Amino acid sequence: MRTSGNFIQVPLINDMHAHGRKGELMERVVYHHGRRCAHVLFMPNTESPILTPKDVEDYRQELRRNCRGAIPLMTFKLLPSTSPNEISDLAAVGTVAGKFYPCGVTTNSSDGFSADFIKEPTNQFLAVLSEMEKHSMVLCLHGEVPDVMCLAAEKEFLSFVEFLVKTFPKLRIVLEHITTKDAVELIENYSKQTSNLAATITLHHLFLTFSDVVGDKLYPHNFCKPIAKMPEDRDALISAVLGGNPQFMFGSDSAPHDRRNKECYACCAGVFSAPVMLEMLVEFFDQHDSMEKYEDFCHKHAMEFYGLKKITNKVRLVREEWRVPYQINGIVPFYAGKTIKWRI
Amino acid sequence: MRTSGNFIQVPLINDMHAHGRKGELMERVVYHHGRRCAHVLFMPNTESPILTPKDVEDYRQELRRNCRGAIPLMTFKLLPSTSPNEISDLAAVGTVAGKFYPCGVTTNSSDGFSADFIKEPTNQFLAVLSEMEKHSMVLCLHGEVPDVMCLAAEKEFLSFVEFLVKTFPKLRIVLEHITTKDAVELIENYSKQTSNLAATITLHHLFLTFSDVVGDKLYPHNFCKPIAKMPEDRDALISAVLGGNPQFMFGSDSAPHDRRNKECYACCAGVFSAPVMLEMLVEFFDQHDSMEKYEDFCHKHAMEFYGLKKITNKVRLVREEWRVPYQINGIVPFYAGKTIKWRI
Repeated sequence: MRTSGNFIQVPLINDMHAHGRKGELMERVVYHHGRRCAHVLFMPNTESPILTPKDVEDYRQELRRNCRGAIPLMTFKLLPSTSPNEISDLAAVGTVAGKFYPCGVTTNSSDGFSADFIKEPTNQFLAVLSEMEKHSMVLCLHGEVPDVMCLAAEKEFLSFVEFLVKTFPKLRIVLEHITTKDAVELIENYSKQTSNLAATITLHHLFLTFSDVVGDKLYPHNFCKPIAKMPEDRDALISAVLGGNPQFMFGSDSAPHDRRNKECYACCAGVFSAPVMLEMLVEFFDQHDSMEKYEDFCHKHAMEFYGLKKITNKVRLVREEWRVPYQINGIVPFYAGKTIKWRI
Repeated sequence: MRTSGNFIQVPLINDMHAHGRKGELMERVVYHHGRRCAHVLFMPNTESPILTPKDVEDYRQELRRNCRGAIPLMTFKLLPSTSPNEISDLAAVGTVAGKFYPCGVTTNSSDGFSADFIKEPTNQFLAVLSEMEKHSMVLCLHGEVPDVMCLAAEKEFLSFVEFLVKTFPKLRIVLEHITTKDAVELIENYSKQTSNLAATITLHHLFLTFSDVVGDKLYPHNFCKPIAKMPEDRDALISAVLGGNPQFMFGSDSAPHDRRNKECYACCAGVFSAPVMLEMLVEFFDQHDSMEKYEDFCHKHAMEFYGLKKITNKVRLVREEWRVPYQINGIVPFYAGKTIKWRI
């Protein structure tokens, strides 16, 4: 189905993976989510990480102040030292998910899980997952093995995902921001036997390939973790999004960094897609003659997997070309300088 | 052999691949070559390219003014439109080599040779190479196929090198700045049957791997074309340099870009190694207990392959740690912030 006419109304997004940052940076970025989203699952790898029930409550307050329209969903950061005893208190304050970060694979993850740990997880960690299972908490995985070449790091992580699915059949697991054909196939295969394994797919991984990051030049604003892969991987992601399997849902992984931390000696990983995500998703589904799939991927699959309350508010877009600014509040957004056909 | 004592005298470098730039930028960079080199082969992909005998003579004058100590060796830029008639006049002004740039693979190469051309070179181009062969000009190759993923682009180019070696057995050919185990093996294999195929190896490819460019963060100052590859490729390059095969010679590919063109939206390719190359080469050979190989790789192999005159001047280094500055005349040098054990 393709749009006709110059207006369209679509459901707000449920963005199941976003970086809200903290303090002054949050004020500059989170309002983009506010006007485009019903729910947003905010990641806990902030400058001071979200570890305790108090962290969760404080961060939720800060997010609510800055992200008025959208409902923030809270996560905590799993560490190798996390104890099973901590889970019930985290669950009691409404923490939706625990996020697993391999060591050094992305922003603020140096305290994460090592490659050795992933090969041989500790009993303490398995007990933590049992507790999460018991409290209906979701396990969110950054799926890359540390110290593996960036193009191979996700693929190597998949056996760990299989181990977890088999060991904790009642634990809901989300493999975040998948980028490879292999990950798509894993999710599709397991979807025949369980509805407890899902994956988020970003906006930018539907558009970028590795050559858009490392091409004739180096493009820091397209650099994220996991890095965009080969054209066949991107095609597999597009097929997954259009295919309608409910185990694929939207997670922007919008990850703003100040321009000075992107255009520098050592450029941070992260694509800031929040200011364009809804508009580009509409354009994406429209161009693929699949507007009827927008709601499933951007809203409904997440609602069902996470058991979110139904939000019926819609957002109205007009068919009007606009050029994405080169900078918004000191941050370069995804698709800067390019033209989008729909405007809120 | 390892150095002993606190002083060492080594021959000046013959750098068989360098970017001297033009105008104001040349004034800021070329003096580093001046004090470290006997001969320098300067690349012709300048902002206005070196195409004609007049270009060659003008550029040589400009280089001589700025690069006092070292003797500039001149190249011209081969284009798909280059005519066989142009070669004798270029040879008459002492042009040493013609440089082949695939389209879009590096700085100022958008007018280069397409992937289709590389698959099926024109008769005109083959006639140009015949003329170069006749005038004892060297063919220098940037060995990457356009529009191929950066990690595979050099390997895919190698069949073209083989085609050229077989078609023009008397043409001296240099595969520039090789980065892969495959390229090392190709050169070694052909060295058993001809001395007309050689390769240059840079300083930075002896130190960097792909993860130093695309790692936890993105490192624009380590980004060059061809991009640094896997650890096993770097090991093959190190073995080639230490192995003593005369078909391997030094070419820095020192390629300065203003800091603002490296730390930006679209970062230029090129590593600026000129300010540290001699010092780091001494350290490299010293650390590998192979000081006796320094002269072969950095001076003699090029002298023999290119038929350069013998320069006996030496440069004296003192064993004294120094930290490479973060910026030299507005350009970030290779190894910035790190410590080198030898100082000129």
